Amino acid sequence: MALADLGYVVSRQVAVPDAGRQIQEAVREALGRADLVITTGGLGPTSDDLTRDLIAQLLGKSLREDSETLGRIKKFFESRKRSMPSTTRVQAMVPEGAQVLANAYGTAPGLAIEVQPNPFRAEGKRSWLVMLPGPPRELRPMFKETVKPLVQRLFPLEGQFVCRTLRTTGIGESVLEEKIASPLQRLVQAGLELGYCARTGQVDLRLAAQGSEGKKMVREAEQIICDQLGAHIFGADGDELEAVVIRLLAERKQTLAVAESCTGGLIAHRLTNVPGASAVLLAGLVTYSNETKQSFLGVRAETLAEHGAVSRAVAREMADGVRGQSKADYSLSTTGIAGPSGGTSSKPIGTVFIGLAGAFETMVKHNFNPYDRETFKQVTAEQALELLRQKLLKVL
Amino acid sequence: MALADLGYVVSRQVAVPDAGRQIQEAVREALGRADLVITTGGLGPTSDDLTRDLIAQLLGKSLREDSETLGRIKKFFESRKRSMPSTTRVQAMVPEGAQVLANAYGTAPGLAIEVQPNPFRAEGKRSWLVMLPGPPRELRPMFKETVKPLVQRLFPLEGQFVCRTLRTTGIGESVLEEKIASPLQRLVQAGLELGYCARTGQVDLRLAAQGSEGKKMVREAEQIICDQLGAHIFGADGDELEAVVIRLLAERKQTLAVAESCTGGLIAHRLTNVPGASAVLLAGLVTYSNETKQSFLGVRAETLAEHGAVSRAVAREMADGVRGQSKADYSLSTTGIAGPSGGTSSKPIGTVFIGLAGAFETMVKHNFNPYDRETFKQVTAEQALELLRQKLLKVL
Repeated sequence: MALADLGYVVSRQVAVPDAGRQIQEAVREALGRADLVITTGGLGPTSDDLTRDLIAQLLGKSLREDSETLGRIKKFFESRKRSMPSTTRVQAMVPEGAQVLANAYGTAPGLAIEVQPNPFRAEGKRSWLVMLPGPPRELRPMFKETVKPLVQRLFPLEGQFVCRTLRTTGIGESVLEEKIASPLQRLVQAGLELGYCARTGQVDLRLAAQGSEGKKMVREAEQIICDQLGAHIFGADGDELEAVVIRLLAERKQTLAVAESCTGGLIAHRLTNVPGASAVLLAGLVTYSNETKQSFLGVRAETLAEHGAVSRAVAREMADGVRGQSKADYSLSTTGIAGPSGGTSSKPIGTVFIGLAGAFETMVKHNFNPYDRETFKQVTAEQALELLRQKLLKVL
Repeated sequence: MALADLGYVVSRQVAVPDAGRQIQEAVREALGRADLVITTGGLGPTSDDLTRDLIAQLLGKSLREDSETLGRIKKFFESRKRSMPSTTRVQAMVPEGAQVLANAYGTAPGLAIEVQPNPFRAEGKRSWLVMLPGPPRELRPMFKETVKPLVQRLFPLEGQFVCRTLRTTGIGESVLEEKIASPLQRLVQAGLELGYCARTGQVDLRLAAQGSEGKKMVREAEQIICDQLGAHIFGADGDELEAVVIRLLAERKQTLAVAESCTGGLIAHRLTNVPGASAVLLAGLVTYSNETKQSFLGVRAETLAEHGAVSRAVAREMADGVRGQSKADYSLSTTGIAGPSGGTSSKPIGTVFIGLAGAFETMVKHNFNPYDRETFKQVTAEQALELLRQKLLKVL
């Protein structure tokens, strides 16, 4: 996807078992098909990490120990005050002629080899083969920092390519398409690529176009979509909803507190994933029990007795309580029934109340999210953050 | 992976762009190779959902509207009090001869077709083709509830297959291999499959074996691994660390409270993902600021001034504070520097103190997790939960 967003044609992605024959067969096929082949995984220290050896064998290249890489691996363990297991040493082995792609996030470096001529291609054209470590937290930054510039240098794109992703929430995929399909029809016929990706609580719209008119087309399409969807669009490209909320509050020098029952800390977790959250989020309270709703938030016993913990009234008192205690400008609260048990006929699983308190008013939204427990938490957290975003943008 | 764990040989997994030629080519190739082909995605209501039509075309089958499926889709929208967009109707289209696999988690059903004879296989043998919706929260339960029994009925395995995954934490992949490789060597030579999967803060060990001796081999291997790794093993197969902690506490009828600074709610979020957490987790507090550490947890101003918020002393007062306020049997606390900014030479990014308080003592662990912000949170949450697990098992 990252390569497609840069404008490259990604013809195929293949996953095979950790076994010699299948790995070599898949790499041979890919080298027969593509100018660039990227493998991930199988570079680690354990006995089932076979990729480095198998590819060297396939290409008829010997492996040598690279002293610089070995030094970096030793340092990695030293800086963590751990002794280096001897098996880790295999990660410094490099096929002859390969370039080492340093890995700042783990011990196994990436490797890049020019396969020239490429014996697996009829025309014998050259191909490039790039091997990357598998763990996502190493792979992702390495791709961005090292592989992307390498690919762009090796394979400069002819012509222009523009790609833009608009991120929406609070609207289903099919309703969304109903709204935008016919206004965009002319642009799609003229070559605009339009893709939909439904996530939990969000739908991404991917716009892409090539050629000299591409930029104009994407800009025009974005304008049409904004006109049709308005405030459902919370951001573009890499924006996350929680980061947008933090940014809006930070710009206003305002603060937030959250009181979570049914979302169980997920709203606080999402907000604190954002660097700089500490300037905005004063406090998050996870109050599952009636007792802690009373002791930490000041929810009244009578309110709990009269309306039950999952109620409009309790959501309101939770939001007001955490805002008062923390002296934050805004507060969010959630109380609901995540399941798998605890539902009743009047309050079935999926029932949720979301509170939002500010200086002038406290509002409570009543939603119904009848999903599995984890999806319920995700959708509810999304709705709470979106409620606050709309409030800050004065859409509400 | 789910099929491999049942003992099937998964020869290949292929991902292609949402484009007609590539989808058909990939399905044709797969039907030429395998007895069972499963596709995921492309069954939704938007114009880029092409899989159903393309596969019907490839197999020369016409599509008809299935009234039962249409009824189910209508009901899905009714139960959510939303009107049904007309584009959604396409999801009731079924290729002739296909079996509908009901989807209780979304609108697009799965489809299963027997391709007999299979024109893409030299021998003309039959194959089965199963199409499933792409969103993971629909795909996962559908696989387990519908596809797994279907596959086991259609392709009964000859002979026995045993698979067991042991889940470990607090030990690196290469150190782990050093400990178990030679004691297991004899079994591996006799046919035991041994795989390592490094996750964030965890390493999974997968043991698999076939034949009449398989069960005995896996059991013997598990015993050897338990002897070597002891308390590093927190569970098996689908066990999550947070679920193990909740179960241990629930069995003892004991309760927990957490006070999180640098993990920002992630510990509470993980614990509340577990059904039944409400009986155990009394309260979670996310106290990012000094003020809320004082007001909600009773951390003393002098302690903060003397030692700083990221310190052994503050971790201790946070743990004691939340335990006292919530009257829980145990409490966990975290305070550290997640980055990307905020590090100093004496307390670099990655510094963290984890507190654990119980009836008889409060202990604080000082760790160093120099990773990106999100990995830092994950690893620290893992270490905190593991600290409590070891305490409950009296390993500490």
